Amino acid sequence: MKTIRELDLSDARKLLEGARALEIGVPMCIAIADSAGNLLAFERMDGGKITSIVIAIDKAFTAAAARKATHEYGEASQPGSPAYGINSAIGGRLMIVGGGLPVQVDGEVVGAVGVSSGTPLQDRAVAQAALDHFSAAG
Amino acid sequence: MKTIRELDLSDARKLLEGARALEIGVPMCIAIADSAGNLLAFERMDGGKITSIVIAIDKAFTAAAARKATHEYGEASQPGSPAYGINSAIGGRLMIVGGGLPVQVDGEVVGAVGVSSGTPLQDRAVAQAALDHFSAAG
Amino acid sequence: MKTIRELDLSDARKLLEGARALEIGVPMCIAIADSAGNLLAFERMDGGKITSIVIAIDKAFTAAAARKATHEYGEASQPGSPAYGINSAIGGRLMIVGGGLPVQVDGEVVGAVGVSSGTPLQDRAVAQAALDHFSAAG
Amino acid sequence: MKTIRELDLSDARKLLEGARALEIGVPMCIAIADSAGNLLAFERMDGGKITSIVIAIDKAFTAAAARKATHEYGEASQPGSPAYGINSAIGGRLMIVGGGLPVQVDGEVVGAVGVSSGTPLQDRAVAQAALDHFSAAG
Repeated sequence: MKTIRELDLSDARKLLEGARALEIGVPMCIAIADSAGNLLAFERMDGGKITSIVIAIDKAFTAAAARKATHEYGEASQPGSPAYGINSAIGGRLMIVGGGLPVQVDGEVVGAVGVSSGTPLQDRAVAQAALDHFSAAG
Repeated sequence: MKTIRELDLSDARKLLEGARALEIGVPMCIAIADSAGNLLAFERMDGGKITSIVIAIDKAFTAAAARKATHEYGEASQPGSPAYGINSAIGGRLMIVGGGLPVQVDGEVVGAVGVSSGTPLQDRAVAQAALDHFSAAG
Repeated sequence: MKTIRELDLSDARKLLEGARALEIGVPMCIAIADSAGNLLAFERMDGGKITSIVIAIDKAFTAAAARKATHEYGEASQPGSPAYGINSAIGGRLMIVGGGLPVQVDGEVVGAVGVSSGTPLQDRAVAQAALDHFSAAG
Repeated sequence: MKTIRELDLSDARKLLEGARALEIGVPMCIAIADSAGNLLAFERMDGGKITSIVIAIDKAFTAAAARKATHEYGEASQPGSPAYGINSAIGGRLMIVGGGLPVQVDGEVVGAVGVSSGTPLQDRAVAQAALDHFSAAG
């Protein structure tokens, strides 16, 4: 038997709060997943893109379930690189575009944040703001 | 050109609040969709079922996009009834199990609530609590 | 080698015209497929349901590609009947709810009409109106 | 509550008309989506490709729901660029090949046109012809 730690809903809300607080003028879709990659909480800010609903959820899924930031997959899957083509895996759910970051506690992945609607760099900055707020609040 | 009204994120939060307030001792997945059925906000209460994530999202999708409570589809699609078999449409997204209710304002569907994790009757009661709280707050 | 006859776009427009002409006060989604079940033309009338987009397209697909009215599948797939469960085939695309009718010329299926947004009986009446108008115009 | 404007069916027909009017000798699939990316109208000209049915529909979906021309995604997702790999998102529905253009009215995206069957540049020219005709007719 084993015991795993994972985010609960109040943690998820703190992460959402941190994401919203970084005001960069781009309405975002923000998804929080647990350690298995399953959705805990989601918000689409007014003006967030419809396409970004699934993308944010899948960035959080990827970052949690693969225990890896999505932009790292982007780097590892360039043409000629070993993970080339990984982006279409799992019916296209494996996201390699930045904006999905694992949430770690004591070096252990306990969940993830996925953000979409801006540029990948903006998405990643908002996801990082969620993590920073969560660490500070913890 | 036409003009349509739909829920915004602050409306979605009021609906989530109303759903959570009905304390029946069953942790739920609660999804709020806009008038086209696209996800606006979602929460999985601690203990909410993993299978219910998609089910709640699809109940909200169905109730908004078909402008019909999901339990009404259940009644209309019994064996021998004209809509029998509708439940597998749209890749299985068309939900006929109770717990998806349209949100109406002035007789117009502006979004929907989808609830899952309890019995269909419990899910429906929680969705109704969301609507009641929203009307009272409006 | 073989030669097949199938609907062209001007036929598809005649079918759409016939479907629209039956004014029953329910805004419909109307899809016209060729003999292989592939979409030729589609219209969502103002107020047609979002869920009915895929359903209308899949009714036309089923009626053309299986050369069978969708309501006949409904009858043949009731519990205890040999085709029970066929509705979830092809990822749920095989529609057994009324509203999909093959278009026949000289006893040969050359395409189909799929209608959705009303009750299955209303959908079927509108699909029939499309066929009647097409025959009269032919 | 918020209010959004979107295309209606008569607008969609004007867009189809404009797309057909650009006679470049390539039979096209042409899809018109509303502001949420959902299909409003579709025509496959005689000889339009079967593969282009879904591609045209998904180009219109992407351009409307992401409020961005599909060729812009193509540029932003080249190997080494931040959005690399975005094309397999949403089950592959996110199209990055030219031919999907948002329809804007007063700076607001109210829908989109998606065209497929020619080269991406031809598809884009036909989608642009639809927009130009719509603006002129408006």
